[in-house]
Amino acid sequence: MISPDLASHTAALLDCKDSLYKQVALRISELVGHGTLRPGDRVPSVRRCSEQQNVSIATVMQAYRLLEDRGIIEGRPQSGYYVRAQRWSAPPEPGRSKPTARAVEVRVSDLVMQVVKAGRDPSLVRLGATLPSPELFPLKELHRAMSSVGRRSPLAANRYDPPPGDHGLRVQVARRAMEAGCTLAPDDIITTIGVTEALNLCLRAVAKPGDVIAIESPAFFGILQIIESLGMRVCEIPAYPREGICLDELAQRLGGCRIKACVFTLNFSNPLGSCMPDAKKQQLVKMLAQKKIPLIEDDLYGNLAFGLVRPKVAKAYDEDGWVMLCDSFTKTLSPGYRVGWVAPGRFKAKVEFLKFVNTAANPSLPQMAIAEFLQNGGFDRHLRKIRRIYADQMECMSAAVARYFPRGTKATRPAGGMCLWVELPEHVNSLTVYRQAIAAKISTAPGPIFSAKQKYQNFIRLNFGNPWTERIENAVQDLGRIVHRLAEAKGSCGM
Amino acid sequence: MISPDLASHTAALLDCKDSLYKQVALRISELVGHGTLRPGDRVPSVRRCSEQQNVSIATVMQAYRLLEDRGIIEGRPQSGYYVRAQRWSAPPEPGRSKPTARAVEVRVSDLVMQVVKAGRDPSLVRLGATLPSPELFPLKELHRAMSSVGRRSPLAANRYDPPPGDHGLRVQVARRAMEAGCTLAPDDIITTIGVTEALNLCLRAVAKPGDVIAIESPAFFGILQIIESLGMRVCEIPAYPREGICLDELAQRLGGCRIKACVFTLNFSNPLGSCMPDAKKQQLVKMLAQKKIPLIEDDLYGNLAFGLVRPKVAKAYDEDGWVMLCDSFTKTLSPGYRVGWVAPGRFKAKVEFLKFVNTAANPSLPQMAIAEFLQNGGFDRHLRKIRRIYADQMECMSAAVARYFPRGTKATRPAGGMCLWVELPEHVNSLTVYRQAIAAKISTAPGPIFSAKQKYQNFIRLNFGNPWTERIENAVQDLGRIVHRLAEAKGSCGM
Repeated sequence: MISPDLASHTAALLDCKDSLYKQVALRISELVGHGTLRPGDRVPSVRRCSEQQNVSIATVMQAYRLLEDRGIIEGRPQSGYYVRAQRWSAPPEPGRSKPTARAVEVRVSDLVMQVVKAGRDPSLVRLGATLPSPELFPLKELHRAMSSVGRRSPLAANRYDPPPGDHGLRVQVARRAMEAGCTLAPDDIITTIGVTEALNLCLRAVAKPGDVIAIESPAFFGILQIIESLGMRVCEIPAYPREGICLDELAQRLGGCRIKACVFTLNFSNPLGSCMPDAKKQQLVKMLAQKKIPLIEDDLYGNLAFGLVRPKVAKAYDEDGWVMLCDSFTKTLSPGYRVGWVAPGRFKAKVEFLKFVNTAANPSLPQMAIAEFLQNGGFDRHLRKIRRIYADQMECMSAAVARYFPRGTKATRPAGGMCLWVELPEHVNSLTVYRQAIAAKISTAPGPIFSAKQKYQNFIRLNFGNPWTERIENAVQDLGRIVHRLAEAKGSCGM
Repeated sequence: MISPDLASHTAALLDCKDSLYKQVALRISELVGHGTLRPGDRVPSVRRCSEQQNVSIATVMQAYRLLEDRGIIEGRPQSGYYVRAQRWSAPPEPGRSKPTARAVEVRVSDLVMQVVKAGRDPSLVRLGATLPSPELFPLKELHRAMSSVGRRSPLAANRYDPPPGDHGLRVQVARRAMEAGCTLAPDDIITTIGVTEALNLCLRAVAKPGDVIAIESPAFFGILQIIESLGMRVCEIPAYPREGICLDELAQRLGGCRIKACVFTLNFSNPLGSCMPDAKKQQLVKMLAQKKIPLIEDDLYGNLAFGLVRPKVAKAYDEDGWVMLCDSFTKTLSPGYRVGWVAPGRFKAKVEFLKFVNTAANPSLPQMAIAEFLQNGGFDRHLRKIRRIYADQMECMSAAVARYFPRGTKATRPAGGMCLWVELPEHVNSLTVYRQAIAAKISTAPGPIFSAKQKYQNFIRLNFGNPWTERIENAVQDLGRIVHRLAEAKGSCGM
């Protein structure tokens, strides 16, 4: 059975204004996406494609290598290139989310802390947390960078470096922001302890306890916890599994709810995996700027696009400084370094003050080590590698869900990030699944922790950040059995 | 002229229950403190002392080495040991502080941020910030520890390590807490980004916006800023320059102000340098526990005692978990590592939750590196070294203030820490001093930033954390000239 989703997503994420070979790759991937070329079909030979597209042989070779790298085509010795076959049938996708319309207080923390603590047990197969496996990171190169800066600049490595933080790192971050369509100066940036601190500082800079914050629904439980801890309330905005929040609904809520700020993950949101098309991002930024509502943009997963280029950030369309862009190297370089940053736009002075007051300064050495690593230029190569790995792992996880979960199960088809949002048959309670899975030594993230009102009772989030192994395959199979049993039990007793 | 303060302070800080040679050293230092032995006097010979005190020659030798190490006596070749002469006359000490009695909102941040930013200019002689010079730290040993753990445990160094934080470090911290009279288990401890984050978490765990927090007056401006940023109010408690907050006044305010929590630096407070005697600490802990008021204890400077042993923490007397002890390695090992910790007593679950929500986790490697350094056992030797250095630098700074500042200047005589609190002649405005000093390329910390109501208009804080040089000597002389001019100008126009 054919599932051209990955290809069509890849196509959607290609930036045509980029170089020639990417344009060629885009055209081929579109042919696959539209079903013109089907899995197993031979793609035009290099020579023929060169004639058809009126480009050099070298350009076609480069395009085909890229498509191969992205898992869209595969080369067969002595035979040419073929559309790669997908050996699984993707489950259908969930529909648009339907959160509560009015502003509510957040009360998820007890449940979240239980889930988080359970997820730490090393004896569990960890499908719960979105923690990438450290083996996927450039451990040696980072260690080398860190040893080298520590030896070369012992005073700087041990010096207290108050906000905005390490200058060298801010230069590198500003350079890389161009990839996401952003023009940032080093002085626009403040380094933070991961995205977590950045989100805290942004929220505290623009809102007070009691204020209403708009978030997408389902939302990352960490964002719910931050809002809860700050005594703010949320207004949950419905979201589509592919394109993210529904702008019409947002516009309507902006009228009713006295929303003080928005916190959105537009690129590969967690848990939905949605990616808002750039044109809609532009529309969103314009809508909020008109109403002078700050947009706190969490781009933690933006670099983990499965496509050939990463999507833009909303900050790229920010003309008046209302977008506060938060990002970190936690999911791409090292979870343990805790190096994040924020470009807070017009709220820079306030955020810088709060950073100073909240943690005084970031540790110097991890910032310097990452700056050194970025400057030495291994990051793009590393990103290409892990994007491919995550794309493959996503396919494995989707295929396993399709194989082992009962009829009626739906799952998202993310084009980036590291999690799958799975809708179980209607009456299967995900907290029961969660508990039975823990007993079977598997951690999952149950749906209710992704909503202030603990909705999504029949959803679970599955992490595909770890290299696919038989152990994981077996765990998904076990999980499928648990869901099967619960679905049947409910069916037979009419619940 | 004789100034036996250092010796008497040293004596006060000695713990008599400690080993024999320390008892001998204590007795000699008391003789100096009381004036029985005066600068230049010969102390009893080793043999005579051994007979008098009924201890071995080796014990006396050890005691004399300790006294020599602390700058109380000096050996002269072929001649024996003599009480070390002080070549300066200490200025008189300021009196007890007189802050506003009622609870007030805090509004210091704009001024503080100006001062902090000015203090960063590398072309200034930095007498403002209490930043120790990184050259005083064991840079090589720390780098070696960090390289070694990074190489040995690459996965752990790059792994996300959620609260309570690195277990190895918590074991070491628990062991060291015994020095401060505390029995802590590793699980009582949560690691934080310096003391700054620890104080934030503690305050958020026990108080809400609008609540009143008792602080000593003058108080470290960072504490004022944290309270301001959290929308809480303060009640400033009068403090003595030697013994810290006045317990009678505190008892009185506890009746009137509906105080929700106390934040006190009992050991070498900043800027006063006061150290509360252990018996008073015990009384304080009892008083607050009876009223179920949490005591947030900031012990950042406790290890920087000039005496032979460090003073106890209030946490040592905590029976019911009302004391939340905050500390960090920022002032003793490395300002750049930002490794702090908190032992939050009965509020542990709340603080752990807030840590998770505020910064998710501490960077792993700096924690592991410090744990490795502590385990290898260079910390006590290092502490002995820097205590001696700071004691010497304090003497230099006191002597320079005595030499260059006009009559009517008063200064504290701290027995630990790294700052001097200087009271200028009554009508000299410290903000004017601050501005003129900046123009002369010297940073200072003006009195008003240490009070919610911007009192202490004629006080400045001077940092003696940097090795004494001619450049610093000249800066203090220039500062003295500025104060002289302002004192005379005011005098002549009758202000």
